[in-house]
Amino acid sequence: MAAPRLVGPVLVVGAGLLGTSIGLALRRKGLPVLLRDVVPQNLSIASGLGAGDAAERGSRPQVVVVAVPPDHLADEIVHALRETDAVVTDVGSVKSAPLREVSGRVTADQLARYVGSHPMAGSERSGPLAASASLFDGRPWAVTPHPEAAPEAVGLVTELATLCGATALPFAPDEHDRAVARTSHVPHLFAALVAGRLTDAPGTHLALSGQGVRDVTRIAAGDPALWQQIITANSDAVAELLTAVRADLDDLLSAVRSGRRAEIGRLLDQGVAGTAAIPGKHGGPAKPVGALFVAVPDHPGELARLLADTGASGVNVEDLHIDHDPGRPVGLVELTVADDRVEELQRSLEERGWTTHR
Amino acid sequence: MAAPRLVGPVLVVGAGLLGTSIGLALRRKGLPVLLRDVVPQNLSIASGLGAGDAAERGSRPQVVVVAVPPDHLADEIVHALRETDAVVTDVGSVKSAPLREVSGRVTADQLARYVGSHPMAGSERSGPLAASASLFDGRPWAVTPHPEAAPEAVGLVTELATLCGATALPFAPDEHDRAVARTSHVPHLFAALVAGRLTDAPGTHLALSGQGVRDVTRIAAGDPALWQQIITANSDAVAELLTAVRADLDDLLSAVRSGRRAEIGRLLDQGVAGTAAIPGKHGGPAKPVGALFVAVPDHPGELARLLADTGASGVNVEDLHIDHDPGRPVGLVELTVADDRVEELQRSLEERGWTTHR
Repeated sequence: MAAPRLVGPVLVVGAGLLGTSIGLALRRKGLPVLLRDVVPQNLSIASGLGAGDAAERGSRPQVVVVAVPPDHLADEIVHALRETDAVVTDVGSVKSAPLREVSGRVTADQLARYVGSHPMAGSERSGPLAASASLFDGRPWAVTPHPEAAPEAVGLVTELATLCGATALPFAPDEHDRAVARTSHVPHLFAALVAGRLTDAPGTHLALSGQGVRDVTRIAAGDPALWQQIITANSDAVAELLTAVRADLDDLLSAVRSGRRAEIGRLLDQGVAGTAAIPGKHGGPAKPVGALFVAVPDHPGELARLLADTGASGVNVEDLHIDHDPGRPVGLVELTVADDRVEELQRSLEERGWTTHR
Repeated sequence: MAAPRLVGPVLVVGAGLLGTSIGLALRRKGLPVLLRDVVPQNLSIASGLGAGDAAERGSRPQVVVVAVPPDHLADEIVHALRETDAVVTDVGSVKSAPLREVSGRVTADQLARYVGSHPMAGSERSGPLAASASLFDGRPWAVTPHPEAAPEAVGLVTELATLCGATALPFAPDEHDRAVARTSHVPHLFAALVAGRLTDAPGTHLALSGQGVRDVTRIAAGDPALWQQIITANSDAVAELLTAVRADLDDLLSAVRSGRRAEIGRLLDQGVAGTAAIPGKHGGPAKPVGALFVAVPDHPGELARLLADTGASGVNVEDLHIDHDPGRPVGLVELTVADDRVEELQRSLEERGWTTHR
């Protein structure tokens, strides 16, 4: 039998940021989309934005996408499996716990139609007004089938991710949860712990904050209500990794107290190796990059002129930071480019009158 | 008596990144600069760059700037106080430990001429070739007098920082050390601990890395040999703060294991408050900012076109991130602007044909 193609209708349950964005992305490709939400206002905003039409009772979707908060995932997945004969997926940040709960409440035939998934996209904002058809463009989207999932169901969910503009990546559910504990949940918790310790600092102390502490703590600004649910749902993998980091912290603390330098150095070396292990742009291996700093007057237009001059140099910018400046209306811009192009960029920008340093 | 003015000559001991940059910054203002370094090659590179002239035996500097690695600071400060009658400062990352050691080895008259300082500037690169006259432009520069320091010495070191382009901020030495433990040293160590745990992840897991883990771990790529000396020199303040974070971690771990949500929520709330406590651009109170995401073809010129269109909108960009894209040659650019200007920017960019989302 040939694999079925995703033609819709796709029923999206939960018209928040993710659900509405999925509707918009699929409508962009011409697929029929139906929407459901317990909050009537979300539904009217989402359909008003063009994310799909309000689902009517008895509609027959080909695929159901459950896009509700973590606490309600299992209930809605079970409901969708019982009330329709569609393939069902969800877009929650944690995969094992909902699967475990769903498995105990549905028949084997129903379970075969369920394949979890997780797009690595989001925003610090939430709700349908923050949605966008391009939210998933170029993002990883984990597809996490359990062993009893029907191959056709896996195929349809993979096609859904691809049609939304994402890159589908297959993961076993527990493997996914261990991966995101490491790449997302535990980093978030440590960002929160480090940021939390800034609250009891005298205000004058924080005047010495540089770009480093800003970067380390940035994600700690995310919605605590949502993160509380995510951490709770992935508590096993998170606790295991937190325990491992605590052991490292104990070693470090003991080494700092006793001035055992080699041990401090070993932990710092491991950190350097970790930063190099993160895949580079476009999923390739990390390639060596270098930084060039440029002083830029801090008003509209100057940054554009710098980028135009950078573009004229032919050197591609991998990343850019604008450093915060405590005393003067001059921004310091850090351009990250391939390590072997820094010198060329510096020469080109200096020739165009920019003050730079490496 | 009128406060003396800084007219030089300034003797810079250690022609590395910081020392050479100080020489270049002072020469820019026309001050005579003398250089000394135990490595002849550093000296010839620095003077070749125009950072000053090699110091001759018996030269009479007005100010000596000690810019050597942390391990050698105290020896060089003592040497400068004994061999000259100049005001002496250093630019080390830690202030109490060197002061303690110097105090025990010099006379009261000599000690009165010593005032430590610490420019909040640096680079992942090191050595005189990485130096720049603009390294300190707009950066904070802590000036950390001890109670017995002569007011004239404090004045000259403050003027030195200002002439280099920085904003001088007065701190007591131990207050400085507690401040940088919190805003720099402890964030660095946690970045290293989180990054270190990436090294034992299966490679496929790291494909789910997003911007969050990249930001949290970025500074962990810094030079372990240097950081080992910094952490050791500031071990008291660092150990005290690490102990406090470990107590928070223990609470968190216990809450995660037992599923005590309110407690997890409390720690996350504290993290949000901490991110808001970091001073905003130009040292003012943090002002609310919002993010706009824009899809940008990933080749030279497109980013400049986006910034030009942003400039035309009249909305000033506070920060910019280029998100890494695992599967396609499209970058996702996150523009951070004042919260009440996001909508205006979005409308303006959409009108110019950009695909955006909030």
